[in-house]
Amino acid sequence: MPIPFTQLVNTLPATTPFVGPETLERQRGKPFRARIGANESVFGMSDAALQAMQQAVAGSAWYADPENYDLRQALAQKHGVDIDEICVDAGIDTLLGLTVRMLLEHNGKAVTSHGAYPTFNYHVAGFGAELVTVPFQGFHEDPDALIETTKKVNAPLVYLSNPDNPMGTWHSADVIQSMIDAVPENSILALDEAYIEFAVDDIAPAIDTSNPRVIRFRTFSKAYGMAGQRIAYAIAHQDIIQGFNKIRNHFGINRIAQIGALASVKDGGFLDTVTQAAESGRQRVMNFASDLGLYAEPSSTNFVAVDLESTERAQAMITKLADLDVFMRMPGVAPLNRCVRVGLGSDAEFDLFATAFKQAL
Amino acid sequence: MPIPFTQLVNTLPATTPFVGPETLERQRGKPFRARIGANESVFGMSDAALQAMQQAVAGSAWYADPENYDLRQALAQKHGVDIDEICVDAGIDTLLGLTVRMLLEHNGKAVTSHGAYPTFNYHVAGFGAELVTVPFQGFHEDPDALIETTKKVNAPLVYLSNPDNPMGTWHSADVIQSMIDAVPENSILALDEAYIEFAVDDIAPAIDTSNPRVIRFRTFSKAYGMAGQRIAYAIAHQDIIQGFNKIRNHFGINRIAQIGALASVKDGGFLDTVTQAAESGRQRVMNFASDLGLYAEPSSTNFVAVDLESTERAQAMITKLADLDVFMRMPGVAPLNRCVRVGLGSDAEFDLFATAFKQAL
Repeated sequence: MPIPFTQLVNTLPATTPFVGPETLERQRGKPFRARIGANESVFGMSDAALQAMQQAVAGSAWYADPENYDLRQALAQKHGVDIDEICVDAGIDTLLGLTVRMLLEHNGKAVTSHGAYPTFNYHVAGFGAELVTVPFQGFHEDPDALIETTKKVNAPLVYLSNPDNPMGTWHSADVIQSMIDAVPENSILALDEAYIEFAVDDIAPAIDTSNPRVIRFRTFSKAYGMAGQRIAYAIAHQDIIQGFNKIRNHFGINRIAQIGALASVKDGGFLDTVTQAAESGRQRVMNFASDLGLYAEPSSTNFVAVDLESTERAQAMITKLADLDVFMRMPGVAPLNRCVRVGLGSDAEFDLFATAFKQAL
Repeated sequence: MPIPFTQLVNTLPATTPFVGPETLERQRGKPFRARIGANESVFGMSDAALQAMQQAVAGSAWYADPENYDLRQALAQKHGVDIDEICVDAGIDTLLGLTVRMLLEHNGKAVTSHGAYPTFNYHVAGFGAELVTVPFQGFHEDPDALIETTKKVNAPLVYLSNPDNPMGTWHSADVIQSMIDAVPENSILALDEAYIEFAVDDIAPAIDTSNPRVIRFRTFSKAYGMAGQRIAYAIAHQDIIQGFNKIRNHFGINRIAQIGALASVKDGGFLDTVTQAAESGRQRVMNFASDLGLYAEPSSTNFVAVDLESTERAQAMITKLADLDVFMRMPGVAPLNRCVRVGLGSDAEFDLFATAFKQAL
């Protein structure tokens, strides 16, 4: 008896955007000793958030406020926007899914860079839309090409991450602002700024919610150190936020995450510490690569792409590192996949990585 | 500049399935003193879960296992099914959304009872499908009518909750089994058993995952006391689970929720305590109503519908209770909306409710 799936679901492949480290550990039959492959933060959470969440666990019987009112109010204040210009949901992944669903008809087109964040692609496929890709320019996403293609194929949605995942590269605020200004009238730019707080330079253009051509995505998963809590937000024109509200899962937010995120936002100094720690961490990886005569791409994230000059070497390195109990990932497509992506870890994790990496080389 | 929403999103209303108590509190300008309107459990969590989650908060930097492997394994063992016959996601709401998306084409039909769980209807509308309703039979959902209509309109999806929300009523395992057996070949029954662990009697038919005509939904939000954690699961034929896996948000689960749910499942005796406490709590409400000469509908959930004999009286009661700091809800449509839904609360909440209710009468 066949299942009465939709035509679309029948045609979807049974793939997932990422394989989790736990899956690999089950396959290996033993845990990793360094987990530096999933872009998780090693710099901890705000103490205030940690304490607020530990206390909040006892109140797990209650649903979270479906309006995320207090959190949105704090975020609105932080970003100088109105509370109705913010939508909170369970991670940028969830928000990207809603964005695709909200803007793309079946067979509608979305533009992204070939090799950019795969979960965006997963949602585009999952809602029956069509992905159009443009190549990276070297190790950078190419704003001009993205806009040009968006116009050419008349795509309602174009995606760019700044800083970029999986390469850690970035564009200046001016370049991004020019891109925003160039988004055509029937399109919207999904500007994924998941890693923005790791950047030392101010690479985020001013937030202007009067412009309905861009959605800014921010998260508590990265610099805030709360990936496991699943909470993020979109900042956009209020008409776009109203669109999210028509389709989002209103009771989808974890109450403890909501409380922790609020405490994080209110802990103003925390992010500065993280930004500095990330900069030191990146420098350590850059120096390490340089000492080995390898090129490492400057990064504004919590990982550094190290160029091994061929896919075969990069793949062999990932395998060998896993054998030596180091979980790391690499970009999926050419020309990015000549690199491995070194996540910033603790001192112990870095030492383990460094030893294993040198051994593998 | 209009937003390039899909045609569907343009036509969707800006409504939400429920207004949260926090929203009402903001409107009132003061908190409720009794929160017995959102079907949240007053019976607490498993101690093991509480402790596991408090400990787990410090590990919030890591994503949860996207396969939910350990949890699915424990659930598979509990229910005597295979691990590939279980899908975990962030609450039954999320799973219902996926179910609709997976089975209903645009303009496809879903059958439910008029006045049943509104979030199912929200998803049906949100994915552009059409809702076909059959009336309740008195205060009970009507399995025969649901099946008959499913056949008549050739609907791929039919929804029933057992026990029922918002009425607390239930059908025996035999009746539900007969309904499952009667699901036509091109249809699937979404059997929402969110409240099943509150039932004293064994009203859940045996789980048979070889039958691809039914999906059983279970949650940690109700008897497990973890609504704020947002974690639930579906049990179904593995082909259906594979469908979920094609479209679900693989990294959507909160890591702390995952850990807490696992600890809850392993704490075997906990649910028995809750079932008994719920039975006492229901009896207290039944007696209270009876003493006032009011009919209260026997319930297998953590709330009791008390019949005030007219919508006007029921609505006035909800308003008056709110004035007296008691948050309660009532069913939304006739003939159910002559009732108010009394959630089981603590002793203090019950006393507050009882005093306020008598005053309001």
